[in-house]
Parts: sequence; structure tokens; C-alpha cells
Amino acid sequence: MSEKIIIIGGTAAGLSAASKAKRVNPDLEIQVFEKTGYISYGACGLPYFVGDMIREPEELVSLTVEQMTNKRGVPAFTHHEAVKIDRSRKMVTVVNLDNGQEQEHPYDKLVIATGARPIRPQIPGIGAEGVYYLRTVEDGIRLKAVVKAEGKKKAIIAGGGFIGLEVAEEMALSGLEVHIYEKLPRLLPFLDEGFSEAVLETLKERGVQVHLGMGIEEILETDGKVSGVRSSDGAEEKADLVLMSIGVTPSSELAQEAGLELGLKGAIVVNDEMQTSDPCIYACGDCVQMKNRITGGPAYVPLGTTANKQGRIAGDNIAGGHETFKGVLGSMVTKVFDLYIGATGLSVLQAEEAGFEPAVSVVTKGDRASYYPGSRDNRICLIFDRKTGRLLGAQGIGSESIAGRINVFATAITCGMTVAEINELDLVYAPPVAPVYDPILIAASQAMKKVKP
Amino acid sequence: MSEKIIIIGGTAAGLSAASKAKRVNPDLEIQVFEKTGYISYGACGLPYFVGDMIREPEELVSLTVEQMTNKRGVPAFTHHEAVKIDRSRKMVTVVNLDNGQEQEHPYDKLVIATGARPIRPQIPGIGAEGVYYLRTVEDGIRLKAVVKAEGKKKAIIAGGGFIGLEVAEEMALSGLEVHIYEKLPRLLPFLDEGFSEAVLETLKERGVQVHLGMGIEEILETDGKVSGVRSSDGAEEKADLVLMSIGVTPSSELAQEAGLELGLKGAIVVNDEMQTSDPCIYACGDCVQMKNRITGGPAYVPLGTTANKQGRIAGDNIAGGHETFKGVLGSMVTKVFDLYIGATGLSVLQAEEAGFEPAVSVVTKGDRASYYPGSRDNRICLIFDRKTGRLLGAQGIGSESIAGRINVFATAITCGMTVAEINELDLVYAPPVAPVYDPILIAASQAMKKVKP
Repeated sequence: MSEKIIIIGGTAAGLSAASKAKRVNPDLEIQVFEKTGYISYGACGLPYFVGDMIREPEELVSLTVEQMTNKRGVPAFTHHEAVKIDRSRKMVTVVNLDNGQEQEHPYDKLVIATGARPIRPQIPGIGAEGVYYLRTVEDGIRLKAVVKAEGKKKAIIAGGGFIGLEVAEEMALSGLEVHIYEKLPRLLPFLDEGFSEAVLETLKERGVQVHLGMGIEEILETDGKVSGVRSSDGAEEKADLVLMSIGVTPSSELAQEAGLELGLKGAIVVNDEMQTSDPCIYACGDCVQMKNRITGGPAYVPLGTTANKQGRIAGDNIAGGHETFKGVLGSMVTKVFDLYIGATGLSVLQAEEAGFEPAVSVVTKGDRASYYPGSRDNRICLIFDRKTGRLLGAQGIGSESIAGRINVFATAITCGMTVAEINELDLVYAPPVAPVYDPILIAASQAMKKVKP
Repeated sequence: MSEKIIIIGGTAAGLSAASKAKRVNPDLEIQVFEKTGYISYGACGLPYFVGDMIREPEELVSLTVEQMTNKRGVPAFTHHEAVKIDRSRKMVTVVNLDNGQEQEHPYDKLVIATGARPIRPQIPGIGAEGVYYLRTVEDGIRLKAVVKAEGKKKAIIAGGGFIGLEVAEEMALSGLEVHIYEKLPRLLPFLDEGFSEAVLETLKERGVQVHLGMGIEEILETDGKVSGVRSSDGAEEKADLVLMSIGVTPSSELAQEAGLELGLKGAIVVNDEMQTSDPCIYACGDCVQMKNRITGGPAYVPLGTTANKQGRIAGDNIAGGHETFKGVLGSMVTKVFDLYIGATGLSVLQAEEAGFEPAVSVVTKGDRASYYPGSRDNRICLIFDRKTGRLLGAQGIGSESIAGRINVFATAITCGMTVAEINELDLVYAPPVAPVYDPILIAASQAMKKVKP
């Protein structure tokens, strides 16, 4: 008899696991249960769906239930929530949310890919109508409806992380008055301080008002509807809607109730093969604790790229493989209006916490030949070990080309390169595309001056 | 007494050497002699100067003679041609081209950075008025004058390499009728065959006529002026001007006459410290033979990036250092209209010649999330060792972002990564910038399937 595989969660990690396992061993009987109404959606595209750069929710979906079921041979069920794992009997209880029916499904191997969910702070008014989150397609549809509704509206965004900034851009472009409240004293505090300021300036230039060092302590309501917020300084600001984007927390309750080991921020602990403390149960994606690729220590960096990789590895392994996940650098990129922001590896603080003696170097350099029209500055910050010059982290802001440069640094970190070695890289050059001394090389050569063996 | 340094050639390599040596040891007495009327010009920008993207020749110059002399403390002389090196007496004879006066200059150390010059084929009519080259600023001024002159003109470009293609673009955008003659059966033959076809299609779409497998055997003239060409099939084509861009040859006559060892294509042989067969004479840039970073064997890849690096190393070493040049990958990028083309490392043929058993994998993948507007395909070709999966070369065509991806592959090759290791890289992702499975990862994962240990 063929092995039965149950996968809980049908987005990046879950579907990667399902697809990979089925490809490796077509005999496996795999079923995917997804709580929301959509599988395989690009959650990172939701801000742009809200802003209508992407018109229909279906555009965010790369595989429908029908394609998954018929083409890939993996039946997938939406509106099906797994509510209990019975490890001794190897059974998962799943509720059909459309009709409330419960059913037990036996498994030989189970994959938990329940992801993460937005943090919902316990403040007065949090339950008012007009408080939004942005994680699922349904969240996006709800938020887009109010953003695109007639009439001038005022939005308050709690939290100036990536989701908050991306939605701020899209709301501002949609004509809303936008206020961001960020509890910390600066935006994206893992970045170089000057970079945080540049992000702030970009937002201000486009009319987004940013309140730094300011949390939201109460959501004001009138007749159960949002009417404003009260911030930590006691001031009140009127608003028609509030987006809560103060971070996410791993959705690990099911694992916890089943007695699986949890780690950082309550994320599920897995080994490099993505196996939980129960050898028959794998977990992957935003619900698991991961390994930092540089320090080897635990990390929680929920990103779509990692979820896909981990899903593929879990899928390979439930089909009998022994693939291992190598860890995260936390490479990321985003844009705020026309300012692109990227980072990889450790921040200064993280490097210090990991026991390094980091030195920092920041350079500014055009992204193409200075004489070629349209050159825009790239600002690059390198974080490296002061004694050895080994690169630990890199951050950049500027034009779209920053993404490729951060990827070079991610590759260099992966290979353990020093800034001196990076300075010797043979990189491409053409006046319309990149300067003869690429910002990567300039950053490395400036950093070399601070290395003191 | 301070050491006397003479540097022959005042562009990328020569000025990098001069600036670096002076920074390291301000006591050095350094003089730079440059044959043309400009130092420190970005020769790679000349096609865009011809097309008027760059208006004035001065814009191509990053350091003037005055700046070099006064700010950097290195007197530089234009229109000064070194005509003889007397190694026994350590003297260089320099002619002032403005007045014909010859002068001998003593040196303790000499740097030859004479670059390369366009190949001038010995065919009938080559001396006719209307035959152009593009290497120096003066060449650019001459060519721009005819391109921008009144009246519809027809240009023939001999050679479909980078300069030929870049100038073809700029001439076509300037309203000229443009024909490219390429002796080889396809454009940029080191690229994947499909990529060569895409370049050809792009040119055709923009009205550039390309004659493949067709050399120019005679330049037809009327009253000493170009009137057309006769190609290797005997056909005649009328033309108002001809650009000869069939490649360059190292300017190594001076070195040869001085008895220095020459290598590949007549380029000057240097060791890793950029020292010639005479320990008091260094050479760098487009006039020297270099080392291929992958094979360790000799190569001749004249590129501005390499010239700058080698110049810096020669400068460091004439000031007493022992820096070494690590070799070239030949990383390059260019654009033909809106098609960007990049490459690094070995081509299939080069890999075979170097004794590898290369396998090849080609993928096509959007440069951002498929659902995000404006996504353009990146096509990536990886060349890797069939048995070990070690990456040997990478090529790409598509959107501007191809440059950053080629740089990632260049970094990976430098570190000796396999395609399996590349597939595990933690790269950036955001729907407006890069897809969750970056083309780099897709290319690597497809390549993995062809690795047969």
C-alpha cells in the first residue's frame, strides 16, 4: 500500500513540499488542506493587489486547486482547517469550514506548513470594524475594497516594516492620506542609520506622514467603527481605517498542542532535514525556526524564498530523501516608491550578538557610468569582521539594480569571502548598465581600509 | 633622491597605475605620456558619444591633465608619444606630437600601458576617406561629425562584436541606414546559439541589416571617398561610410622593439605582479597577456575593468608592493536597443579547450513576479562541468537586471561553486524586483539535472 501524506497549509512551503514529494515518488498519496479559500498565492504581492497594480486576486495564484489536483495529482482542499494532530494514532482532524463537518485523516507522514499570522495586539478597539490585516488573499480583498472605495480616506498603518511601507506606498498612490506609526525610533532599524533616514525622506516627499517612536495604544471607535487612534504620547489622530502590520507570529498552535518542540518566538523546532521532534512529522516555512547560515544559531526570518526552499526539502525527504536546509541569510529587497532597499546577512547588532567584532563601511556610487544619462546612486553598507575582513552583512538603497548587488554579497557571504577578495571580483561593466568600478568594488575597497588584522 | 617613474599611456591602466603609486608613495616622481589629446577617458562610452547620448567629449573624461598634474601630483602630457625604450640606459624617448621635438626621459621604473588599437585589414580602399575606427576620443569626434551631419546616410559596420553592435544601435537611433557585416556565421559566437539569434532578431526589428558569414574584401571608392563595399560573396553594397570594428590588437610594438617577451596575439607577457620580462618594466591593460582565472592559462580579454585593476596593481608594485592580479573571467555586459546581454567565464568551446567536459543548460524565466506588471524574460545559459557540476561560465540575455545576475555567477565561479550550491543561495525576492524563484536558482536547478558524477 502506498504511503499517506497529509500536508497542512497550501501556500509556498506546503505546496512546494507536496509538488516535490509527488515528483520524486508518484505513488505517494498526498492531500493538502488549506484553511483559506486560496492555495499557492503570492502573499508578497498582496500590497500591489491592494494598490491595483495587480487587478484580480486570481493573478496572485500560480496553481489552482484544480491544477494541483488534476495536473500534479495532489488533491488540495481549501476552507479545510486542520484542528488536531493525534500523534499516537497518526491522525489529523480536519474541519470543512463551509459545512462544519469534521473528518479524521490517517497519515504516515505529516507536513506542517501553517505559516505565520499578523500579530493582533490586545489594545482597546482592536475588534472595531475598519481594523485590517494583510496576510491572506481574503485580507487583501477586504483591504482593497476600502482603499478603492469612493471618497477621500485617511489610513493609519501600525508598524513600519516591509508590509507597512509597501502598503503605505500603494495607499498613497491610491489617493489616501497615510500615517505610519512606528514604535521604534527609526524605520527598518536593522539598516544603516542613514539608510533609515533616506527611507523616511522618500515617504515624506510623497506625503506619507511618519510618526516615529510612537506605538498605538488604543483604536478609537464610534458605533463599533474605527474613528481614529490614540498613540503612546496620548495624542489622538482621526482615521477611517487602521492596518495592523506590527509583525507576524508563527502559527504553531497545532504543533504545540501535539507536543512538538517549539523554539524562537514559538516557531516549530526542526532539524536540517525539516523534521520536527516527531520523526513522522515535518514542518517548513514561516511556522518553523531556522538556522542562520552565518552563525549557525537559531533564527526566525519568515520569507517566501525560504518557505519554498524548505518546502522542497521537506517534500524530498518525506519521499525518502535526505536533503538538508543550509540556513538563511535573510536576503531581502523591497521598494518604497522609487527607492529600492535590499539587505542580506547580519546587521551590526546581530554581528555583535553573534560574537563578531564588526566594522562598518558605507559608500555612495552611481549605478552606471557617471557620464551616461540616468545614473542613480547606490548606497552600500558593508558589515564585516574587523580582524579578518570576512563579509558578514550588506545593505543597500538606491536604484532597482541594488537587488543584483545584494545578491552578489549574499553569494560572497555564503562562500565566506573577505572584502579583499570581493574587491578582486571580475564584474561586468558597460556605461549604460554599470560603472567601471562597480559600487560593489568601491564598497569592498573602502571596507578593506578598516580591516585591522 | 626620489625614484623616477615613467608611465606610457594615460587611460584606464596607465592612470590607475600612476594614481595608485603616488597614493602609496607620494615621494615618487611620476610622469604620464599620452599619445592622444585626452587622458582618462571612458573609451567604452564612445558609442554613446557618437549617438549623442553623451553630448561633449569632455563628459567622457574623468580626470583632466590639470587635475592629474595639480591635484594628484602626477604631471600628465597629452600628444606625447613614447617612441623608444632604451633598457640598458633606462631611458624613454618621447616625441611631442605638437612640435615634433624629441626628448629622453630617464626612469627607475617604467609602466607600459599602451592599450590596444583597432585592426586595420589590408584590403583595397582601406585608406579611403570615410573609413572610420572607434577607439580614441578623436575617433569618436570624427565619427560623430559624420553621423550627425545633415542628410540621410548609409553606414556599413565591418564586424559584429560589441563595438559594432553598440555603434549600430546608436547610428540607427540617429537615423542612419545601418548594415553589419560579420565574417562569422553568427553574432557573438561565444554565446549560446539561441542568444545570438535573439540579438540578430533585435537588430532586424530595429531595421539594422545584418550580413552573416560575410567579410568585406574591398572598400569601394570614388575620388578617394568611400562609395561602398564588396563583400566576400562578390556582392557590392553602396555606403557613405564604413566603420571598421573587426577587433583590436595589443599596441606592443614599443615593448617588442625593446626586446620584451610577447605572448598571445602579440600581447606583452607579464607575471602576476604585472612585471614584464624586464624587472624594471611593468605593463598593464589592453596591451598585456592575462591569466584566465578558471584555467590559469593565458588569455587576451581587453576590458576596461581589467585595465583598471591591473593598473592599480602595477601602481602598488612600482611603489614597492607585491600585489598580484588574480586573472580574468571576462565578465561583460552590453545592450543592443532594449536587449541586455551579459556573460562571464568560459564559453562551451573554451571549456572544452581547457579540458573540461562541459554540460549546458538554458532556461527562460521572468525577471520579477509573473503577476507583477512589466516582467521581462531573462534567458540564462549555464556552462558547467558535467561530472562535478562546478560552474564554468554563464551567459544571459533579457532585461537590464541580467547584469546583476551575471555578477552573481561571476562570484560563484570565483568561489568554485557547483550548480547545486548555487541552487541553495539565499537570494532576494520582492514581486516588483525579482521572482521568488530567481532565474539564477531556476538555471542552477535545471543544470543540476544534467550533472552525472
